[in-house]
Amino acid sequence: MAKIPILCYLLYLCPNFARMEFSILGRDAQSSARAGQIITDHGTIQTPIFMPVGTAGTVKAVHQRELKEDVKAEIILGNTYHLYLRPGLEILKSAGGLHGFNGWERPILTDSGGYQVYSLSDRRKLNEEGVTFQSHIDGSRHKFSPENVMDIQRIIGADIIMAFDECTPYPCEYGYAERSMKLTHQWLSRCVKRFHETDPLYGYNQSLFPIVQGSTYADLRRESAEYIASVGAEGNAIGGLSVGEPHEIMYEMTALVCSILPDEKPRYLMGVGTPANILESIALGVDMFDCVMPTRNGRNGMLFTSQGIINIRNEKWKSDFSQIDSDGQMFVDAQYSKAYLRHLFVAGEMLGSMIASLHNLGFYLWLVREARKHILEGDFMQWKHGMIPRLTQRL
Amino acid sequence: MAKIPILCYLLYLCPNFARMEFSILGRDAQSSARAGQIITDHGTIQTPIFMPVGTAGTVKAVHQRELKEDVKAEIILGNTYHLYLRPGLEILKSAGGLHGFNGWERPILTDSGGYQVYSLSDRRKLNEEGVTFQSHIDGSRHKFSPENVMDIQRIIGADIIMAFDECTPYPCEYGYAERSMKLTHQWLSRCVKRFHETDPLYGYNQSLFPIVQGSTYADLRRESAEYIASVGAEGNAIGGLSVGEPHEIMYEMTALVCSILPDEKPRYLMGVGTPANILESIALGVDMFDCVMPTRNGRNGMLFTSQGIINIRNEKWKSDFSQIDSDGQMFVDAQYSKAYLRHLFVAGEMLGSMIASLHNLGFYLWLVREARKHILEGDFMQWKHGMIPRLTQRL
Repeated sequence: MAKIPILCYLLYLCPNFARMEFSILGRDAQSSARAGQIITDHGTIQTPIFMPVGTAGTVKAVHQRELKEDVKAEIILGNTYHLYLRPGLEILKSAGGLHGFNGWERPILTDSGGYQVYSLSDRRKLNEEGVTFQSHIDGSRHKFSPENVMDIQRIIGADIIMAFDECTPYPCEYGYAERSMKLTHQWLSRCVKRFHETDPLYGYNQSLFPIVQGSTYADLRRESAEYIASVGAEGNAIGGLSVGEPHEIMYEMTALVCSILPDEKPRYLMGVGTPANILESIALGVDMFDCVMPTRNGRNGMLFTSQGIINIRNEKWKSDFSQIDSDGQMFVDAQYSKAYLRHLFVAGEMLGSMIASLHNLGFYLWLVREARKHILEGDFMQWKHGMIPRLTQRL
Repeated sequence: MAKIPILCYLLYLCPNFARMEFSILGRDAQSSARAGQIITDHGTIQTPIFMPVGTAGTVKAVHQRELKEDVKAEIILGNTYHLYLRPGLEILKSAGGLHGFNGWERPILTDSGGYQVYSLSDRRKLNEEGVTFQSHIDGSRHKFSPENVMDIQRIIGADIIMAFDECTPYPCEYGYAERSMKLTHQWLSRCVKRFHETDPLYGYNQSLFPIVQGSTYADLRRESAEYIASVGAEGNAIGGLSVGEPHEIMYEMTALVCSILPDEKPRYLMGVGTPANILESIALGVDMFDCVMPTRNGRNGMLFTSQGIINIRNEKWKSDFSQIDSDGQMFVDAQYSKAYLRHLFVAGEMLGSMIASLHNLGFYLWLVREARKHILEGDFMQWKHGMIPRLTQRL
């Protein structure tokens, strides 16, 4: 813990570290839910917010125009691992960063690449210095370290960038979880140092979020949250959850960590989750979410709606000419029928994935907007209580 | 030729056969090009027109909203073979036809299924009665005849339906081409009879277009065109071209057939073609076109523009951050760069196909609108003369 004062000093010194503004505009009296806003150089984000995942610089099967005008996404994600490998840093730099490359003018957040190195790459080798790995695309050898991941994220140029961490799997032995957490903390100090030594490349601010780890062990989570909280970053993330553990444990760890992370900074629960997971975690004090679920499950024919979950490939929708989602806000919800969408999936037509991805993203963004509205109106828990059973049932 | 008087009689008697209105609003003085309009119960089509191909009830990778508002498509195609196999007639009938099923409210044309039976199905067997074949999807056995193809197209419910024909391959021996043409003529009389005996199912009119065959033999094409002309249908199609023959032969046959088909009825050149093919054929008197090229080639990374053809997968576009098409009318042309689009194709991202399909369709529809404008303004041939070399060059 000896490094904390130095880290704090660096964070407060660094002019890059004070420009993002987060303010809480309303709180729920029955829970830890809060409604706020984050102001970045690329615009304002209303929280709680869901961030669609744009892995390789594209939210799969969705046009940027639809993302902006129909889904009303306020911030999207890019994956450092994917973008580093393709199109690569040279092209991203020439394009003026990811915003210039993909034409998305609103805020972007990039992860640190760690999660993908562990889940996608071949022959990875981790040590204190960093991770060496082989690309899942062409087998080429690469190295990620806290320092070069900061440099890479400077080049990608997201508004919010993440510290390089190790995301432990579930289940994870206590000893490994503890060592891994300590490594993540060590890496954080190197990330902060490098972040402090470098400047944004494209004339707008970037904010660095550190990540709480500690697997499913309350004492480790507490230690990690305290360490991360003490760093004084502009926002804080909770990693290593939603990796297979029961939902109850995820909520327990999230509640614990949220109770320690500073109240006046946004809290980001990484990789979460189902619509119900999101509402429960908002109640615990989380402000930001990302997940591939709406797009990935959409491409497999699973639709999330306010009435429940639809597997559109199911025979039962074959002759159901009702709208995809009569309560839905998206143009696809009213324009296409369930029977037509099922046909597209059965026939392997791309439009099926396009419709389902758009529907699901529209639904996720609607859900967090509704949550925000109910927090501000004071009836969030009552509304959530009515929503959860509907969200989780199979139609 | 003995059947012609009876056919004519049937055609004039049948109340279904006089409701589509075609009028010619302008003619080019230097060519046979004409600008017209076709009024159907689902709206007006400005000719010359290009019809995007919506094989299985979806123009691949394009939303119906984009097709209407961005591409400004006035009529789309459906393939009888594909729709008959999937989703099948029962579902299409319950949906109130293809318009009800896919939500496209403007005119639709369906082919007769013949072309796909010959090109896609397994173990097809053709005789005077019709064609038996096995589905390319599940091997199930089916039969198409002039009669049931009329019935099927009644159920699909397109505004314009096509007679059941045999489309000869290229090259094709004279004897086979002659026998095939005569069979197509015999089948036509059966199609007309069945069409006359049946009514539209959904409260709007359907028009039947017969198809000229005769391969690349001028005498057969002449005989077929005269036969088809004498039938007195509301519109006439030219089939069996653009199947591999040199463009010069295609143009020669098209010119010959156009000179025989009635001037006051729309002429539809099936399955054509490149942007240059379309302009040349408009000059010969063709009013309607369809082709999978803008969407299929788009999905392979080929873009048609007013400055030439782009293979976006080419290394040369890797760091080209200029707009996809600075002269383009589509939102994708200005919103995305060549380098970004190349990245999407290299990374296998669906958005690549979506952008390229939309760009190409928008370009094709722009091209025929421009052609129409220049016909009405009196400088069509001069404009075409300037366009052709640009359209065909590789960028």
